Amino acid sequence: MKKIFGLIVLFLLVDINAGNLCCSYPCQNNGVCLTKGFKDYECDCTRTDFYGKNCDTPNLLKRLKLWLKPKPSTIHNLMIDYQWYWDIVNSLPFLRNFLMKTFVLIRSNLIDIPPPYDNDHSYITLGAHFNHSFYTRVLPPVPEECPTPMGVAGKKELPDVNALVKKLFVRKKFKPDPIGTSVLFSFMAQHFSHMFLKTDFKRGPQYQWGGHGIDVTNIYGKNKHDENLLRSFKDGKLKLQTINSEDWPVLTKDASVEMHYLGPVPAEREFALGHSFYGNFPGLFMLSTIWMREHNRVCDVMKKVHPEWDDERIFQTGKLILLGQTIKIVIEEYVQHLSNYNFKLMFKPDLLFGENFQYQARASVEFNHLYYWHPLMPDEFIIGETNYTMRDILVNPGLVIKHGMATFVDSLSKQSAGAFTVNNHGAITLPVVQKLIQNGRTLRLQSYNNYRKRFNLQPYKSFEDLTGNKKLAKVLEDLYGDIDTVEFYVGLIAEKRRPRGMFSEGLLEIGAPMSIKGVMSNPICSPKYWKPSTFGGDVGFEIVNTATLKKLFCQNMKGDCPEVSFKVPGFVEQKRTDDDCAEHEEL
Amino acid sequence: MKKIFGLIVLFLLVDINAGNLCCSYPCQNNGVCLTKGFKDYECDCTRTDFYGKNCDTPNLLKRLKLWLKPKPSTIHNLMIDYQWYWDIVNSLPFLRNFLMKTFVLIRSNLIDIPPPYDNDHSYITLGAHFNHSFYTRVLPPVPEECPTPMGVAGKKELPDVNALVKKLFVRKKFKPDPIGTSVLFSFMAQHFSHMFLKTDFKRGPQYQWGGHGIDVTNIYGKNKHDENLLRSFKDGKLKLQTINSEDWPVLTKDASVEMHYLGPVPAEREFALGHSFYGNFPGLFMLSTIWMREHNRVCDVMKKVHPEWDDERIFQTGKLILLGQTIKIVIEEYVQHLSNYNFKLMFKPDLLFGENFQYQARASVEFNHLYYWHPLMPDEFIIGETNYTMRDILVNPGLVIKHGMATFVDSLSKQSAGAFTVNNHGAITLPVVQKLIQNGRTLRLQSYNNYRKRFNLQPYKSFEDLTGNKKLAKVLEDLYGDIDTVEFYVGLIAEKRRPRGMFSEGLLEIGAPMSIKGVMSNPICSPKYWKPSTFGGDVGFEIVNTATLKKLFCQNMKGDCPEVSFKVPGFVEQKRTDDDCAEHEEL
Repeated sequence: MKKIFGLIVLFLLVDINAGNLCCSYPCQNNGVCLTKGFKDYECDCTRTDFYGKNCDTPNLLKRLKLWLKPKPSTIHNLMIDYQWYWDIVNSLPFLRNFLMKTFVLIRSNLIDIPPPYDNDHSYITLGAHFNHSFYTRVLPPVPEECPTPMGVAGKKELPDVNALVKKLFVRKKFKPDPIGTSVLFSFMAQHFSHMFLKTDFKRGPQYQWGGHGIDVTNIYGKNKHDENLLRSFKDGKLKLQTINSEDWPVLTKDASVEMHYLGPVPAEREFALGHSFYGNFPGLFMLSTIWMREHNRVCDVMKKVHPEWDDERIFQTGKLILLGQTIKIVIEEYVQHLSNYNFKLMFKPDLLFGENFQYQARASVEFNHLYYWHPLMPDEFIIGETNYTMRDILVNPGLVIKHGMATFVDSLSKQSAGAFTVNNHGAITLPVVQKLIQNGRTLRLQSYNNYRKRFNLQPYKSFEDLTGNKKLAKVLEDLYGDIDTVEFYVGLIAEKRRPRGMFSEGLLEIGAPMSIKGVMSNPICSPKYWKPSTFGGDVGFEIVNTATLKKLFCQNMKGDCPEVSFKVPGFVEQKRTDDDCAEHEEL
Repeated sequence: MKKIFGLIVLFLLVDINAGNLCCSYPCQNNGVCLTKGFKDYECDCTRTDFYGKNCDTPNLLKRLKLWLKPKPSTIHNLMIDYQWYWDIVNSLPFLRNFLMKTFVLIRSNLIDIPPPYDNDHSYITLGAHFNHSFYTRVLPPVPEECPTPMGVAGKKELPDVNALVKKLFVRKKFKPDPIGTSVLFSFMAQHFSHMFLKTDFKRGPQYQWGGHGIDVTNIYGKNKHDENLLRSFKDGKLKLQTINSEDWPVLTKDASVEMHYLGPVPAEREFALGHSFYGNFPGLFMLSTIWMREHNRVCDVMKKVHPEWDDERIFQTGKLILLGQTIKIVIEEYVQHLSNYNFKLMFKPDLLFGENFQYQARASVEFNHLYYWHPLMPDEFIIGETNYTMRDILVNPGLVIKHGMATFVDSLSKQSAGAFTVNNHGAITLPVVQKLIQNGRTLRLQSYNNYRKRFNLQPYKSFEDLTGNKKLAKVLEDLYGDIDTVEFYVGLIAEKRRPRGMFSEGLLEIGAPMSIKGVMSNPICSPKYWKPSTFGGDVGFEIVNTATLKKLFCQNMKGDCPEVSFKVPGFVEQKRTDDDCAEHEEL
């Protein structure tokens, strides 16, 4: 009797455990798991170069490739070291071109386009491609029917969000960025990324209201209607007004675009900008202003070259030129800075012509989460001689006008941004990260280790392996229990920093493909667009090809050129060994 | 005094003639014209392989290529003749694969993607790419400021539209299609093309409300809302009802999607379909029905293979399978028929993997105009034993139910469609073509000769050269005066037919790139999608890979399989020489 009872229990247990066998993510190397009835599954290994039940055996060629392929950490160490070697490489155009092309192609190949996944299905659907109001997904959500939030690993519930925020995110003491990143960089990151990462919170975290790409809507407004409100319709220019003998954006009473100020703002400081959020931080207001001034400057140049052109043509061409400048600065200065590579990156779209490269991009939920760089924000801002708290600068665009463009950008360039690490979220940003973690759960994001596997990185085996820090490992272990249940954002921020790196290996190896693919797939990089006539001829093309951050500012202000830099001037990186680096700063 | 006066007049004349020098389209070989002040222009020859002031001198390699390249007519003649040769080619997989790949790549390369032009600008703008509510343009509109509607050629005004319709389009006697095309083909053309060519007439002919691609919205509804209304939410299936022991779509009272019936329809025949227009013609209603039955049949198959799947997953996978079947049938039967090639086309997406091929498509205004195949519609329809006039069948979906699916498809397969030629528009379609011509003018479409040049075809030098028919040439010359002012649609339909061709050289050489690019750039053809797991495993993938038009019908009806064919059975093409072919049928 006991035996029979035991058998019945066993049978029931087996049946319960069966369910969706794909919940345990058995297929390796990006093979696709497909259930076969209730009690079996198969892995579709098509084009993975692996075979076997779980796509875990490489074919011969793949085996050779894997054997020859250096580890990401080896490549990283090569890129950030051996200055003498890179001095040579950077001076040989043929080699530099070849490396840049390889860099773009290898990174881009990791991004699936057309996008296969949306946020509502754990399998391929047509909506993923055809519905542009969705963010796309790099990895599909964990199926609803799985036993635990991460599939089969871990407990029935993820750690309490409040506890997580308290233990992992609260800033006790400001930790500066270890490679000398300036606050100007932080605002550039925000100003740039809000252009294509626009969550439609009213509809839910899976929806977005942007154009999925670098479309300069952060300067010109979210659609034609707003753009028209911001335009002067004279000589291609945007509306600007003069205050304290400098040009600034006009007020919403003169360009009635919808703005979302986070608090009350005096009518004479309610500016109309391309992005509804950008009035809230002086840094964003400053960048919006400088790009608008640059647009009008470019219009003057175009008007001179093409006196025969009407307002519309000057405007449209100006927009194309500013888009080109944006990408040039993003690749050659912004990505260059954050990568900290000794290899000098280049914006040269023609390197990709004739290659198998898709000129389309989709904003993904993962890229959005990965770009939550709030620790970069300090608690205080030193503008000129004055210290401002975060509260002082919030909803206070007028500060830029008060101090003037030159002083403002100079100050932001000279102040150090925060490090992207645990316990470095300023008080004001804590609700943001709390909401982010909650959204990640609503969206059923897969575990950090699964994302590492997706990007050909080794999954971490232990918390210490992940963090490189015993104390932090203990905190995480107490919270999660199982390394395979660490959430995406938590993994990105808790992972040990790379030697001489601004970020962890995971953030860079997952973020760089999204970022590089995003910029290089822009239409202006395609063969039909990338030619002088698109930019109004040689003069406009030259503006694009010689753009720099410094020129952007200094050609649009009077007087001496101030400091304009993504790196705090005079900053010296502390020489650290690999082992040092593995240690997180004091928790 | 006279001399001075003369000089002043000359000066004024020069100045007037100057204006926008690009109006004369001086740049050859797809070079881009850019004005240089009021009195000069330059051609941007970047990547055209040509150089010189007007991009008219080929570089050495291009010269060699041009010398080796066979004329389109030579290739066409090879493709439609030498059956013995093609029997060998078709039986050699390696050769057939190679030719198919070459065919797709050469055609696709003629389509610019990302799209550079919209309908509001005669130059590249960002909106062309980022604004999906626009149709794109293959060639930009003629600049507004040009002296004549076609630039500088011809008169200030294009011929009167009424006169044009009367002289060129009115059908006096029905002319049957010369390669034996059936009426089933005509309805398939309509059912297929209305999926991605959806003009938003309320906003204007430059706007569209579709997804720009093959997204099976013609079966499942224009958006998620409509799709949900059409779904039963049981086992993945669509709602269907049984009438006369056959399955038919339900009525709008049971699935309240918005339908646009062109006239009053009895409540018991007001069917709810994927496309709002498809209730108006029995042929479209028939195709909608058969695809919906096929969806439910596929769901049954999937349910059997995957008893563990829920309604949603069966539905989404069914949709992917039906999309695959659509493309398979379109390439291997529909395009195969209209090309009349002896080379057997194949739907094999993997041929393109690793190639430089863009997986994105945009519906263009030109493709929309080119697809106005109304002459294919006869004036009468013979269903079973009954003759119906066009008026009888209009807004009468019930006819299909009355006769039954088998009789209906059998009848449409056995009746000959009309020829796509001049004076062959049935009375009911005349307002449509009239509006089309007007829209072409509103959109400032370039001349037919400019489109020929864009697709590497020789522009025509005379009206007789274009038409191959003295009488028609005279009519056109009286209307247009200048061969360089013939409008796009008029050129397509008035051009001499090709030997053994359903269409003219222009229509095929311009339409085929758009069409092939449109189908092969579908997301399901991309490496990430094109694998068994996307289609529910081997069983679903097999359904896609073995789909035929005949199976689509015969697997979804009871009794013997009737005639299901794009070619009227027993039709024998008249043997014609090149010269015969050059002659249009009697005007």
